[in-house]
Amino acid sequence: MSTLGCPGFRFAGVAAGIKADGELDVGLIAADAAASAAAVFTQNRVAAAPVVLSRALLARTRGKVRGAVVNSGNANACTGPRGAADARAMGAAAKSAIGGEALIASTGVIGRPLPMDRLAPGIAAAGAALAADGFAAFARAIMTTDKRPKVAHRTVALGGRTVTLLGATKGAGMIAPNMATTLTFVVTDAAVAPPALRRLVGAAVEPTFNAIAVDGDTSTNDTLAVLAGGATAAATSARELRALGAALHDLLDELAHLLIGDGEGVHHVVTIEVTGARTARDARAVARRIAISPLVKTAIAGGDPNWGRLLCAVGNAGVALRPEAIAVAIGGIPVVRRGAAVAGWDPAAVAAAMRAPAYPIAIDLGQGKAAARHLACDLSHDYVTINADYTT
Amino acid sequence: MSTLGCPGFRFAGVAAGIKADGELDVGLIAADAAASAAAVFTQNRVAAAPVVLSRALLARTRGKVRGAVVNSGNANACTGPRGAADARAMGAAAKSAIGGEALIASTGVIGRPLPMDRLAPGIAAAGAALAADGFAAFARAIMTTDKRPKVAHRTVALGGRTVTLLGATKGAGMIAPNMATTLTFVVTDAAVAPPALRRLVGAAVEPTFNAIAVDGDTSTNDTLAVLAGGATAAATSARELRALGAALHDLLDELAHLLIGDGEGVHHVVTIEVTGARTARDARAVARRIAISPLVKTAIAGGDPNWGRLLCAVGNAGVALRPEAIAVAIGGIPVVRRGAAVAGWDPAAVAAAMRAPAYPIAIDLGQGKAAARHLACDLSHDYVTINADYTT
Repeated sequence: MSTLGCPGFRFAGVAAGIKADGELDVGLIAADAAASAAAVFTQNRVAAAPVVLSRALLARTRGKVRGAVVNSGNANACTGPRGAADARAMGAAAKSAIGGEALIASTGVIGRPLPMDRLAPGIAAAGAALAADGFAAFARAIMTTDKRPKVAHRTVALGGRTVTLLGATKGAGMIAPNMATTLTFVVTDAAVAPPALRRLVGAAVEPTFNAIAVDGDTSTNDTLAVLAGGATAAATSARELRALGAALHDLLDELAHLLIGDGEGVHHVVTIEVTGARTARDARAVARRIAISPLVKTAIAGGDPNWGRLLCAVGNAGVALRPEAIAVAIGGIPVVRRGAAVAGWDPAAVAAAMRAPAYPIAIDLGQGKAAARHLACDLSHDYVTINADYTT
Repeated sequence: MSTLGCPGFRFAGVAAGIKADGELDVGLIAADAAASAAAVFTQNRVAAAPVVLSRALLARTRGKVRGAVVNSGNANACTGPRGAADARAMGAAAKSAIGGEALIASTGVIGRPLPMDRLAPGIAAAGAALAADGFAAFARAIMTTDKRPKVAHRTVALGGRTVTLLGATKGAGMIAPNMATTLTFVVTDAAVAPPALRRLVGAAVEPTFNAIAVDGDTSTNDTLAVLAGGATAAATSARELRALGAALHDLLDELAHLLIGDGEGVHHVVTIEVTGARTARDARAVARRIAISPLVKTAIAGGDPNWGRLLCAVGNAGVALRPEAIAVAIGGIPVVRRGAAVAGWDPAAVAAAMRAPAYPIAIDLGQGKAAARHLACDLSHDYVTINADYTT
């Protein structure tokens, strides 16, 4: 993919001086005409000003916007009435730059006022820089402690034409399921009505961005938005919508993997696969509990085949279960059967499997047929180093 | 306190070779006659065999036992039918050693069979070593990654005589509220009927051992038991029971502080004080969410006055609230008022306050009159070091 573009959209990423290191920190997406928009936002009760404003914007416009503006380096969260005014000013600057209403999002340190004297000119500069091939710059501009930009794309055939889905995500820390858990933007040149787009986004987010955890903390600013411009072809039939939804799911799954792999201090991406649950809700609860357990995460960091911590986490999920029915495999190697160690299991072989950068941990609860999957990672010294000294 | 004793009880701690390092690993408590017993156990659904057996014992005996036996170095959890048989054998060995039914408890690594060839003779040796001044040895024998034994005592005047409450706890890791979260044993020479003792224990546990967290993982083996032998005086009137209950609360509070202070990799013990909540349940939920947030805990480790993470954790507690009503003080210094930074707050002064080994973080939700308190600690490099390589 050399172009990184999507017909009907232009993108920009510029440096406005919000980040101290001079990196790109203002991103802009502009649609050539009003685009359908669907978004999910943080469920944190202390939602940041841009989240409050973007939610209200989508309600007011019934899911029609011209684009999105993002700044990194400052979350505009916990900033009081001034933060709300700054968010409105950010939206107004974006409206001038792209000729219509824009979703707004901010990410970075919490509790400091936005430097509007730099941000407003930055948004204007981003407007002047808009280009069909600007998505790579946009993806860089939304980064905070991310080590690399995270971009993915998919194509879908609709009515004899090929439409594109192009997405970028950022994350790294304060990542937990229960909403988008990050900033993620996807654009497509398919035409989809807002209600249908909302359904597609809801279905695709649940098993992808709502099933990942770096540290179990859900941010104040999480936003995942999909803009459908419609420049190329329309998805209207049930079959077309299914095809587009499947591509969106697949795209978000790739972005979620990229997000966890670039999590703060992450060296191992582990897929928690829970089967044999009575209900999907039970399966998700068990998978999530394992994924956020500090003792499981430090065992992953140490490559320690300490399966007892896995069973302990299973037992803490608040799900009714029979311990003696549980089976566990780590990296494909069975270690627990009927709630106790498999006779003759080889800790050295399991430890070797745990040195891989990515591997599965499979838990069969032996209770039913429901399943769930969750992405987890290690809790490493690097995580502590990054987070013990972030603002200062 | 030179004697560390309690009339009517004898204690022992011996080395049976369960721990590889030759440290004390079998503890025994023997009452001169049947004692009233009340206990709370883990709510983890994967409860260890000794927990299952001790729960059943208290139901069968209606709260009357002769003592307790504990081994460290092996949790006898996730050990299948063999683990259940080993737990019964452990109880039988204790019964021989003390002449009556004993509560049993185990702590240490999960998933390995108990070495009964060493444990059974160890319990017999502990029986031979029982002594009125053996409590210090008992307290050492229940330790795992604890750096030091943790003992506290209180006295209460009952009917003109003075009774003692003597307690020991162990913890260090896999510590989270929602039950006793540790092994804790308290003996008293007061006489209390089992139902009254259960009420006293339930009331005293909630604000003490159920309000602490090292890492948010609730162990498979948590047990807190109180044995009332009655050698000295009886608590029967409402006033006497209140006095005894207050002393028990006070004792457990001291033990809980000792437990957190000796947590794995802990350098700072922080009291989370939530006020202004609509309900006590809301206050507890907010306090607990702050106490287990990895981002708050790493900020405590780094002495980083990153109050945004506190508000983020408040917002994640699942409690309805108005962000613009929240006030925060760290180490007594106001940093947030009406949901935003206090004008002119001094990050350096707050960082200095956070270097103290113990300090409070106060959160006023501004919603009502309910309050809660929770003990928290830092998530440090030492925690990762200890837990990334525990079994191997």
